[in-house]
Amino acid sequence: MEKQKILCVGLVCLDIISVVDKYPEEDTDSRCLLQRWQRGGNASNSCTVLSLLGAPCAFMGSLAAGPISDFILEDFQKYHVDVSLVSEHAQCNPPASMVISNISTGSRTILHMNRNLPDVTAADFSKVDLHQFKWIHLEGRNADEQMKMIQQVVTHNSTLPPEQRISISVEIEKTREPLYQLFPHGDVVFVSKDVARHFGFQTVEAALKGLYSRVKKGAVLVCAWAEKGAGALGPDGVVLHSDAFPPETLVDTLGAGDTFNASVIYKLSNGGSLQDALTFGCRVAGAKCGFHGYDGISEMLRNM
Amino acid sequence: MEKQKILCVGLVCLDIISVVDKYPEEDTDSRCLLQRWQRGGNASNSCTVLSLLGAPCAFMGSLAAGPISDFILEDFQKYHVDVSLVSEHAQCNPPASMVISNISTGSRTILHMNRNLPDVTAADFSKVDLHQFKWIHLEGRNADEQMKMIQQVVTHNSTLPPEQRISISVEIEKTREPLYQLFPHGDVVFVSKDVARHFGFQTVEAALKGLYSRVKKGAVLVCAWAEKGAGALGPDGVVLHSDAFPPETLVDTLGAGDTFNASVIYKLSNGGSLQDALTFGCRVAGAKCGFHGYDGISEMLRNM
Repeated sequence: MEKQKILCVGLVCLDIISVVDKYPEEDTDSRCLLQRWQRGGNASNSCTVLSLLGAPCAFMGSLAAGPISDFILEDFQKYHVDVSLVSEHAQCNPPASMVISNISTGSRTILHMNRNLPDVTAADFSKVDLHQFKWIHLEGRNADEQMKMIQQVVTHNSTLPPEQRISISVEIEKTREPLYQLFPHGDVVFVSKDVARHFGFQTVEAALKGLYSRVKKGAVLVCAWAEKGAGALGPDGVVLHSDAFPPETLVDTLGAGDTFNASVIYKLSNGGSLQDALTFGCRVAGAKCGFHGYDGISEMLRNM
Repeated sequence: MEKQKILCVGLVCLDIISVVDKYPEEDTDSRCLLQRWQRGGNASNSCTVLSLLGAPCAFMGSLAAGPISDFILEDFQKYHVDVSLVSEHAQCNPPASMVISNISTGSRTILHMNRNLPDVTAADFSKVDLHQFKWIHLEGRNADEQMKMIQQVVTHNSTLPPEQRISISVEIEKTREPLYQLFPHGDVVFVSKDVARHFGFQTVEAALKGLYSRVKKGAVLVCAWAEKGAGALGPDGVVLHSDAFPPETLVDTLGAGDTFNASVIYKLSNGGSLQDALTFGCRVAGAKCGFHGYDGISEMLRNM
């Protein structure tokens, strides 16, 4: 039997990254040091990292047909990400996010497109053969539909012995009310610093303790907090912590969160402990901030 | 005989324009109101406007092969711009400039790509059949080569009776020393506010009087100064002026300068007076700032 994969459901888009050494002032003309076109989107980035870590994975999301999609699909294939569940739609908007990456500070300023592509629906999801997956990660987006997808996985799981069941993780990154209904539906729930602060929590520990009542029984809540590292809280009530592992020079923080999520999922899905997963997540995400893109992860693994 | 065309030599690139209602602060995520992909580059924009004004025109410049070029070539064709002189090069960098267009202020912030495409050379230019043109406009870029191109036109002109000679205009927009050698080589010289200020001039009139000694005998020097309108000085020594014609609401100033240049060239190449050309330039450029892109120019003409 083929090795079971990790499925990430969410966004893929084109990130056009302009690298500068000074953030542009309004109404000026300036020249970027270089420009990179990079496949982006949280779930798409997490697939890249999972693949570089050695986990077979698949991406499910929608894509507008056209030259940009060809670029995106080629890039998925370059990283051996299974794209059989990608649905192409007639071109709506050119799906690009503008990113200004400042090498002097490591800051990344993102201008998201107004994306008028339909998200994956529960009806799309119902056609998926779930047997090929051991883990399904959902980037919180169209939460109403995603609730129904999770229900399908739960139903699927109910026919299986515990050790064959699919684990579900959800990412709640944006401060959007409808996403919060996802809290009680992940075995692992990633909550962002942004969301934690939106709820009034000023530290990882406060966020984990304050939000844990929202997750389901037995679930793990994970929260990364940039240079402060990350924490996790599981059913045993012990707050775990990992420091950040900042690189010598901060080069590119774009996708650091997606790298963290993928690395935590990778460890947990391979039977690692929560503390191991947390530390590994911080380590890989930290290293990633020291280089552009993700390819440096392979080299980093060789040196670990 | 086919109607003689206006040739614009210079840059074409892809402008990816993110329209916002607030300029993004560094290291934030925000969503743009809309995103437009637009063919850009000064000479390329001027061709669009010339075409909308009803002048047959051609563009000469270089382009990297690839999907972005297909988009650009299709767009040129949509505006009936002759692209037979465009040279395609194997893809170097994806040729895109990022533009943040703020509808609250009309500001446009441009991050130019680091473009590693060779500019058109005098050798390329020597292959052009100059008989098809009545006017050649050069966007000042690789000035050393452009000097040689102008010399070729001068040689060509010397074989013709005065009324059949090709007029030459040059645009000196950027504050780059090598561009200043172009001053004495245009029948019409467009100098930017930026360059004028770089030479220490604080008004249109001061710039025209101060820089006129640099142009050749009989030439016209033109200088636009944003909301202050524009001025021109010809061999009669009279400084002409036109007020600006700002739209009710400033929407998009991107390409306003290219619109001004094209409109002045259009009028002059059709036998209009310098004052008419100046006023027409300000009128079309002003109207252009009231809408996104250039298509509104057609409607504006119907209402004039």
